[in-house]
Amino acid sequence: MTGFFNVSDLDDVIARVGSFPVTGAEEIPLEAALGRTLAGEIASDVDIPGFDRATMDGYAVKGADTFGASDGSPAWLRLAGTVAMGEEPGFVLGQGEAAAISTGGMLPDGADAVVMVEHTDRVDEATIEVYRSVAPGHHVITRGEDFERGRGILVPGTLIGPAEAGLLAAAGCTTVAVRKKPRVGIVSTGDEVIPVGQTPVRGQIRDINTHTLSAMVTEAGGDPLSFGIAGDGEGELEPLLEKALASCDMVLISGGSSVGMRDRTLSAMERAPESRVLVHGIAISPGKPTILARIGDKPVWGLPGHVASAMVVFEVVVRPFLLAATGAPFTARPVVPARLTRNIASAQGRTDFVRTRLVAEGDGYRAEPLPGKSGLIHTMVHAHGLIRINRDTEGLYRDAIVPVRLLP
Amino acid sequence: MTGFFNVSDLDDVIARVGSFPVTGAEEIPLEAALGRTLAGEIASDVDIPGFDRATMDGYAVKGADTFGASDGSPAWLRLAGTVAMGEEPGFVLGQGEAAAISTGGMLPDGADAVVMVEHTDRVDEATIEVYRSVAPGHHVITRGEDFERGRGILVPGTLIGPAEAGLLAAAGCTTVAVRKKPRVGIVSTGDEVIPVGQTPVRGQIRDINTHTLSAMVTEAGGDPLSFGIAGDGEGELEPLLEKALASCDMVLISGGSSVGMRDRTLSAMERAPESRVLVHGIAISPGKPTILARIGDKPVWGLPGHVASAMVVFEVVVRPFLLAATGAPFTARPVVPARLTRNIASAQGRTDFVRTRLVAEGDGYRAEPLPGKSGLIHTMVHAHGLIRINRDTEGLYRDAIVPVRLLP
Repeated sequence: MTGFFNVSDLDDVIARVGSFPVTGAEEIPLEAALGRTLAGEIASDVDIPGFDRATMDGYAVKGADTFGASDGSPAWLRLAGTVAMGEEPGFVLGQGEAAAISTGGMLPDGADAVVMVEHTDRVDEATIEVYRSVAPGHHVITRGEDFERGRGILVPGTLIGPAEAGLLAAAGCTTVAVRKKPRVGIVSTGDEVIPVGQTPVRGQIRDINTHTLSAMVTEAGGDPLSFGIAGDGEGELEPLLEKALASCDMVLISGGSSVGMRDRTLSAMERAPESRVLVHGIAISPGKPTILARIGDKPVWGLPGHVASAMVVFEVVVRPFLLAATGAPFTARPVVPARLTRNIASAQGRTDFVRTRLVAEGDGYRAEPLPGKSGLIHTMVHAHGLIRINRDTEGLYRDAIVPVRLLP
Repeated sequence: MTGFFNVSDLDDVIARVGSFPVTGAEEIPLEAALGRTLAGEIASDVDIPGFDRATMDGYAVKGADTFGASDGSPAWLRLAGTVAMGEEPGFVLGQGEAAAISTGGMLPDGADAVVMVEHTDRVDEATIEVYRSVAPGHHVITRGEDFERGRGILVPGTLIGPAEAGLLAAAGCTTVAVRKKPRVGIVSTGDEVIPVGQTPVRGQIRDINTHTLSAMVTEAGGDPLSFGIAGDGEGELEPLLEKALASCDMVLISGGSSVGMRDRTLSAMERAPESRVLVHGIAISPGKPTILARIGDKPVWGLPGHVASAMVVFEVVVRPFLLAATGAPFTARPVVPARLTRNIASAQGRTDFVRTRLVAEGDGYRAEPLPGKSGLIHTMVHAHGLIRINRDTEGLYRDAIVPVRLLP
């Protein structure tokens, strides 16, 4: 295929991830931070918790006062008071004393453990019996045990999930500095491609790639912007590319799978100012005709027109670049082992990604390859994951246990 | 513990999922549909593709005209024309004829296969040589091969991911009827709990649960609304619960882990009109003190105050109810097998969920249990998944291969 003499190895393409810039930072409300990436380190402004805290309902005690206590020989303790929730106790616990406390309450000074209410009895207004011995620290979260004041608790590049949102709340962050979502411009190409709102006549096909790629960009933490469809005519792509570059951090051009259009995508990239084509063809299947150019400091991708090919290339090649733009360390998709239901042949010298359905089987899964043509969207609807076949492997055998990387 | 005499089995609680209503439908733009659930069946208004479509650059031919062709004995075909992209060819292919075609182009009537350009040579203006035999259907996607006009292509309850978005685009859906996002009201309780924007004095702690739970609601496809913090005083919770019920499809009340407050959460639920407490205590750890009431037709949850407990209960108990409210069939989290790095003991009669870190090891993972106190948020930051220990199991042994269900 002309123009593909220097097909790049997949790993060499991925190795370029770090050579593009990370987006700038912005301060957003904590409520909006789910799925975003921290721009800076987060330290807590307080100890978490800020006091020794009961984790059970019962009595705050000095552990040593309960040593040897049992059902047959309970310890008798004098009630020094009751801890009110959310307040500092107004008393200090002396030897032989106990204070009624609820889960989450602050231990009075002098107390070092909590005995559960189930292991006590109230003798009278001023006295309790304790039937168990508790060691110091028992049923207590000590001051700063979760996090200490001033200590860094989350590093830059952390992806904010539910637990991280909780940690930011504990640290008092009503707003948080995160990386801006990378804006990703999307252009479809081809005289045969029409917008979704139109009804195709024979020879035409609706623009699918804009919608699959937009969704994948969103899922990866980017902000997709559609710039429409460029026909195959001379000069039709350039203005859309220029517009996309003006407002986006990355551009995806899909289609251009016809001979003429493939050249147009490449030449539109080459004609842009400060442009350098870095990759022209990758030794993967599907996805060989993928192009990567650096225009200014932005990655611009030429993706295959076949819908399933474009999705696989996005998943295995483009997504790491998009994650990197958010400052997040690359995290691989979860991988599950599965039993292959049939042989898969593969050509040496290229890396294959086989769309696969997973079906529960015993304690695990079986992997059913979906060999459909890459121009069909329905195979992607049924695919749960991808099986990677490395370039030095000729294929995989039926009943082999293979790792399947899950698709979102 | 008073009030927990009839602790429910986890499976019996989950079995109630179907007894609550699904949200209503709304029509939204296709661009906004990622992560939403289809309200109705989708049929395509056209065949996809609408014509026999070339999947390679080359020549449209009658396959039979190439039978027996080889490098040594090529077939000679007469050029009948060139197919323009996006247009219906203006000619019919006769016997012994070929038409130049690009990937995505429409085969002329009479053609049934495509021979790749690499396997041909142009002899002169009007003639090509073909060096390979191609069977009818080769390098062609036939009309309706992806989907047929009028055929249901996506069923109600389908979660819309990138592939489904592409399919909706192909089917001409500029808008799509989806289930409304369930609105989930969130109330934190406890005199010791203060808003994130305030600085805690001794005895106080910032409201973490509102933020972890909001993020988990969002991740599960719901729309979280915070109704603030109710103190432990008599009558403080009722107005917040009433307000949340007025505008939400589900309510989560977290905290109330102190003896007094636990009773208040229960009594606020019981006092609401048309209220029935369905579950008061579940045989799981963490999460035993969980409450589920039906108020009107809405599920109202009393969740533990300990942050890690509340997160685990949301993940294993509440989330299936939230997914069901969107009309989606329940889909379990992906499960990966991992080697357990130490023994875990478990009490019979309850189902344990052990927070676990996963570390890559060989081709798989090892599972390092995180035994931290459930009042600490940092164990959840490090947890990648949960190990379930069923109620009839006494524990798990070191080096056992155990299934770990991934956390989002």
